[in-house]
Amino acid sequence: MNITIIGLGLIGGSMGLSLKEKGLAKKVIGVDNNLHHQQKALELGLVDEVLDMNAAIAVADVVIIAIPVNAAETVLETILNRIDRQVVMDVGSTKNAICAMAAGNKNGRRFVSTHPMWGTEYSGPEAAMRGAFEDKAVVICNKENSDIDAVMAVEKIYKTLGMHIVYMDAKAHDLHAAYISHISHITSFALANTVLEKEREEDAIFELASGGFESTVRLAKSNPAMWVPIFMQNKENLLDVLNEHITQLRKFKSCLEKENYEYLLELIEHANGIKRILK
Amino acid sequence: MNITIIGLGLIGGSMGLSLKEKGLAKKVIGVDNNLHHQQKALELGLVDEVLDMNAAIAVADVVIIAIPVNAAETVLETILNRIDRQVVMDVGSTKNAICAMAAGNKNGRRFVSTHPMWGTEYSGPEAAMRGAFEDKAVVICNKENSDIDAVMAVEKIYKTLGMHIVYMDAKAHDLHAAYISHISHITSFALANTVLEKEREEDAIFELASGGFESTVRLAKSNPAMWVPIFMQNKENLLDVLNEHITQLRKFKSCLEKENYEYLLELIEHANGIKRILK
Repeated sequence: MNITIIGLGLIGGSMGLSLKEKGLAKKVIGVDNNLHHQQKALELGLVDEVLDMNAAIAVADVVIIAIPVNAAETVLETILNRIDRQVVMDVGSTKNAICAMAAGNKNGRRFVSTHPMWGTEYSGPEAAMRGAFEDKAVVICNKENSDIDAVMAVEKIYKTLGMHIVYMDAKAHDLHAAYISHISHITSFALANTVLEKEREEDAIFELASGGFESTVRLAKSNPAMWVPIFMQNKENLLDVLNEHITQLRKFKSCLEKENYEYLLELIEHANGIKRILK
Repeated sequence: MNITIIGLGLIGGSMGLSLKEKGLAKKVIGVDNNLHHQQKALELGLVDEVLDMNAAIAVADVVIIAIPVNAAETVLETILNRIDRQVVMDVGSTKNAICAMAAGNKNGRRFVSTHPMWGTEYSGPEAAMRGAFEDKAVVICNKENSDIDAVMAVEKIYKTLGMHIVYMDAKAHDLHAAYISHISHITSFALANTVLEKEREEDAIFELASGGFESTVRLAKSNPAMWVPIFMQNKENLLDVLNEHITQLRKFKSCLEKENYEYLLELIEHANGIKRILK
């Protein structure tokens, strides 16, 4: 089949690379507004050719939308209004708004809403990685709103990428994503700003930064063009979890202020419970 | 030389392993209150033999104290009161209190205060790792308060472990450590508690947890017996940075509440500045 990928960044680029290597796509066609991204994607072999959007949709069997979530919603509407037989899927980190939009479109059943649970803090075609999605989970949302053949085509793509599929309601997805992924990014951005604010001696950071610091602050390198729209779309859930997180931090603060080290011990022992989930 | 290691956990165990392998120590003698740790350390080849503390100090050229920082202070005092020629060093994450104590002891100049910037979220002798300290930094504090031969012996040990040495005032160390290491642990513990509080469906966490979540929450597995004393000893610095961190999180909260996405973008772009420090 011909696969068109709109957005040749970390996710779109990595998908192109893998789908070409696995031989699932007869041809991978790329679409990107950014000329530098177009050239890089061709150079790195992420896509076979680059076309403009209309031409790329016309020849596609499957269209993958891999751009920031606000732009994805707009582009999806444009695409749905132009297609006849094609399958369209997105790969964004928020699902409720885009699913609602598709549900109101006459061709909305050609759309399958997905979220592959893989990423890094880097962006652009240079960030694309071989074997990126292997053994990770992918969420397919509201599949009852999609045509069966469309869901099957998308499942085939993800199985080819080596992913295991989880089905979820779009609203539930956004709630879980806020707790598990989006808040991690907020805390990491805030921690980076804290350190940059308090620690004027960057040499000291550089010398002392060990693995622990690196792992908690790593996500703070992430691309704002991707994350601002995610935070906008998932605002309500995120505020809920952010309030809880500030409450939890205040408990640590209060333990230190009151020198209540028994409770501090309890808080840490409770946090150790994450071992049940993360091996 | 004979090296005695008091505390056969992650740090002490990894040091024993490396110092034996590198051939710097003629003999590595272990001391640990915990019988299981004693047996494991022998089984895993972290030490050559296990003795009680008095016997282990008597035969040692260098004594390494690798136990939680509150216990280290007490044990150091006991050891300083018993030694004649030996060099004593600690490896704890806070330096000000232990340096102050040593400065008041008649044998305090035999003590060298150090902090190797390596660790993992695991603890106990089973967590000891080969090549643990290679290419990392180690801080030596207040070296002007130590005998020159003692500092040279300690430097030789760290160079053998493949570390590069940074010299710092103990007070400055504790301040930087609060900003760079200790706050990362607090945020990670608090984030784990947030997720465990909000996310009752542990299956969902397990399915959706991706690399980003894992890296920000990883430190929440860390041992409370180690971290409570660190937080106690570095309370003032930690409260200062924790207040700043809560302020930074509130900025994100306010952006979402007021839908001020221009400022949200600015906050994230500012956080991206951490790229200057973490490559």
